[in-house]
Amino acid sequence: MPLIRSVFQDELDHVSATLLQMSEMVTTSITKASVAIQTIDLALAEEVIAADEVLDTVQHELDGRIIDIIARQQPVASDLRALITALRMAADLERMGDLAHHVAKVVRLRHPESAFPAELAPLFKRIGDAAIKMSEKTGEVIKSRDTKMAIKLEREDDEMDNLHRELIGSLANSTWAHGVETAIDLTLLGRYYERFSDHAVSVSRRVYFLVTGTYY
Amino acid sequence: MPLIRSVFQDELDHVSATLLQMSEMVTTSITKASVAIQTIDLALAEEVIAADEVLDTVQHELDGRIIDIIARQQPVASDLRALITALRMAADLERMGDLAHHVAKVVRLRHPESAFPAELAPLFKRIGDAAIKMSEKTGEVIKSRDTKMAIKLEREDDEMDNLHRELIGSLANSTWAHGVETAIDLTLLGRYYERFSDHAVSVSRRVYFLVTGTYY
Repeated sequence: MPLIRSVFQDELDHVSATLLQMSEMVTTSITKASVAIQTIDLALAEEVIAADEVLDTVQHELDGRIIDIIARQQPVASDLRALITALRMAADLERMGDLAHHVAKVVRLRHPESAFPAELAPLFKRIGDAAIKMSEKTGEVIKSRDTKMAIKLEREDDEMDNLHRELIGSLANSTWAHGVETAIDLTLLGRYYERFSDHAVSVSRRVYFLVTGTYY
Repeated sequence: MPLIRSVFQDELDHVSATLLQMSEMVTTSITKASVAIQTIDLALAEEVIAADEVLDTVQHELDGRIIDIIARQQPVASDLRALITALRMAADLERMGDLAHHVAKVVRLRHPESAFPAELAPLFKRIGDAAIKMSEKTGEVIKSRDTKMAIKLEREDDEMDNLHRELIGSLANSTWAHGVETAIDLTLLGRYYERFSDHAVSVSRRVYFLVTGTYY
């Protein structure tokens, strides 16, 4: 059935294209959320908050489409695994959008104040940049299916873990003079960025699995 | 094909039984983690940490089994949706296990000290009890498929959100005298319990969807 196979292939390509689209939306959101928290830009934060609903809708539509493909095409085991993996990648990307949205909500909560003291601005720039880079690379991995790049993303996550440790270390330091409320915000912000990166790694691992049939 | 249908039904029953088993493992873990943090019981915390790997294995095995059922049985749309929903419930339950494990790791990190000051003991008891109750009810919802009980779980989550707000409020209070490091721990602990409850609600919503075909 070459014709049906070809329709099926088109459907799989459409699934991949939607995952790539989701990852681009996530990159836009984490970029805007990071700039918003660094520059106290409430309008930008509101854009991220509004965009989260759009991402949820895209995921919901994709989920329905994938299940419909499985029901109609009754794919062989390897194609079925690819489609189930796509469902999981969509869930990771949707969660990354949630976490960017959480960062944006801290901006809204503290506006017109900054969420962090001035001395932490350089660290938040590095944390934001690391998250944006991971999100961009996640998109590249989805697009290229480059397994080496997928493995490299895990190392970038180590960098994020180091930045996260640095952040917590600066809060827990006895010289911390910005009060407990700010420390609570920064603990949660650190957690959001850390989880964001975890999900980026998860997406990459799933791409690696799609290509090789095993996990690294 | 009554015979094949019956084999399929047995397989679906086995999937449900494994989800119930996972929820029981989660209830054991969150109970032990909560008692461990309240009584500074390192041995109990270590049991939770060790159990997480077992839960991961059960989930991994269940995932493989579900995908195998879909590939072999090529179920009709409604059965397919039920199996995909089971995959998602398994992912929620696995994450609940992770979060119980995170609570246990705070016990290990702070041992032989308590993770929280004595004055917060009653609040942590209430938070632990609320999480245990939600976990138990999640198991009951999986077992009974009682949609009314599923909806009620969302209200219990409101109770957890209130407890969480109370916790953050007590940290952010100007009379807080236990240092920033403790506040960081408690912020993260609060977040773990809050996310645990969110996933319990998610499982219940999925059961509701299985029974009714819609989300409440």
